[in-house]
Amino acid sequence: MLLSDFIYYLDLLGTFVFAISGVLLAVEKRFDVVGAFIIGFVTALGGGTTRDILIGASPVAWMQDLNYLFCIPVAMLCTYLFYDQILKLRRSLFLFDAIGIGIFTILGIQKVLSLGLSPIIALIMGIVSAVFGGIVRDVLTNEVPLIFRKEIYASACLIGGLSFLLLSKTALSPALITFMAVILVIFIRILAVRNKWETPFRPKGSQGL
Amino acid sequence: MLLSDFIYYLDLLGTFVFAISGVLLAVEKRFDVVGAFIIGFVTALGGGTTRDILIGASPVAWMQDLNYLFCIPVAMLCTYLFYDQILKLRRSLFLFDAIGIGIFTILGIQKVLSLGLSPIIALIMGIVSAVFGGIVRDVLTNEVPLIFRKEIYASACLIGGLSFLLLSKTALSPALITFMAVILVIFIRILAVRNKWETPFRPKGSQGL
Amino acid sequence: MLLSDFIYYLDLLGTFVFAISGVLLAVEKRFDVVGAFIIGFVTALGGGTTRDILIGASPVAWMQDLNYLFCIPVAMLCTYLFYDQILKLRRSLFLFDAIGIGIFTILGIQKVLSLGLSPIIALIMGIVSAVFGGIVRDVLTNEVPLIFRKEIYASACLIGGLSFLLLSKTALSPALITFMAVILVIFIRILAVRNKWETPFRPKGSQGL
Repeated sequence: MLLSDFIYYLDLLGTFVFAISGVLLAVEKRFDVVGAFIIGFVTALGGGTTRDILIGASPVAWMQDLNYLFCIPVAMLCTYLFYDQILKLRRSLFLFDAIGIGIFTILGIQKVLSLGLSPIIALIMGIVSAVFGGIVRDVLTNEVPLIFRKEIYASACLIGGLSFLLLSKTALSPALITFMAVILVIFIRILAVRNKWETPFRPKGSQGL
Repeated sequence: MLLSDFIYYLDLLGTFVFAISGVLLAVEKRFDVVGAFIIGFVTALGGGTTRDILIGASPVAWMQDLNYLFCIPVAMLCTYLFYDQILKLRRSLFLFDAIGIGIFTILGIQKVLSLGLSPIIALIMGIVSAVFGGIVRDVLTNEVPLIFRKEIYASACLIGGLSFLLLSKTALSPALITFMAVILVIFIRILAVRNKWETPFRPKGSQGL
Repeated sequence: MLLSDFIYYLDLLGTFVFAISGVLLAVEKRFDVVGAFIIGFVTALGGGTTRDILIGASPVAWMQDLNYLFCIPVAMLCTYLFYDQILKLRRSLFLFDAIGIGIFTILGIQKVLSLGLSPIIALIMGIVSAVFGGIVRDVLTNEVPLIFRKEIYASACLIGGLSFLLLSKTALSPALITFMAVILVIFIRILAVRNKWETPFRPKGSQGL
């Protein structure tokens, strides 16, 4: 009970922080109020929406709990009031973002498993939950999605999600496993950014490109 | 009965005019026949399709009434035959476009309400019905969606849709409320373009960008 | 039985070859492992996924037969090991691509017809199955989709699909009709590339653009 509440609020926090990062981008691009809302929205809720559409869970999750939706205007208000402070906080924001993808990945996997789909589909859909919001945001703002080129990001979700699935076969309590897997995603992501880990895909013969 | 017929034909008119605007863009970008069809299609039917996918109404609406689909080749034929005249008509086209978003917004809200979803979701889905076709069109043609930066557009849908929801709580007839809300969207949109209304989102401290 | 097996393996082959073409693009764009997987995935499975979402078939097809999913890592491995050879094979790859769109178009039409939707919707969804993977790939890599401007591609699917629907009204066996329609798409596509057929959409008065 306590853990599920804790996860719920972390989930909202992840949504909120993703929304902030979308709204900051909208400010940089000089979008108007509507543009800022849309970009905040797709960054925060685009991943879970894509997952729900693909697995046929309808209507999509944020239509059933309006708190997720309310994260967007709250993020816009905070950005409007505390723009300078938030910019200074960017380092911590990256930490919140890491928390966000950790929560989104594992909760996404649990949701898909609960619908009776196979673990490998659940794993992929968990990663989609975590990373597709950023991809849609980049597509809408006419950028090549960052995730295609830089840093361990989806890979952190992959390793954390895989660990979650493996640990699920042990006798450990579901709550503990959830918690450990979320922490693992966050931990890998932080290490990856600190150490500038990359995972290039360079077949031999492609060096001259 | 008469009003519902009137709305149905206005809806087809909106679809047709949106298709024309997509096809005109395809001509400018020198797309071929297939490209012109796809761009006309997503501009005219992309918004309603996105709404139907998100709320889980399947198959999507244009699969159930082929008249909507037929608007696209008719728009292509008209553009082919009357290209010069249509370019001169652009001012009136903007008027048709305003009619289109008015109709799409209110009909979208009604459809979502009829599925038992909450008014706030219905409001958002009404706006999605009206504006997402243009967003997908801009994404496919590799432009940053115009709606993110210029003019009252989604805002007109928002105010009209909100008025519709508020008026629904009064004793006025549904037909009259529908009609008034559609007119309101059109009216705001026309005023916004005439007066170059904008809704910038500029937190303090972001001016130097 | 034999034909359905043959088609199944051709379908997997089409998926595999589409995945290869996506992964090759990822190498050119210097994406990392995750980026290469995502681009390979959307190129190979994006068309069928879009079709399934639009017609409301959920969960989407590749969630129900993991062999389709496995085509992506296999394509990545082959590209990694045999990059130089695959580049030399590009001419034959185009042939495989033609086979792919032929199979995807006709199988897509059959799937939609089997759900009781009208032939014209089935035809459009067949074309979507064949071409939308490439469109999503181009959108994600920030290119204007090639299909909007060059060569007979969707048109080959259109003619093949139309022939399939017309032949279905004859007494010919379904297997034979399927086979003939697939071959027709492939044949038209090859002729189109050989002869540089184009289908420009240029209304009179648009020449000065």
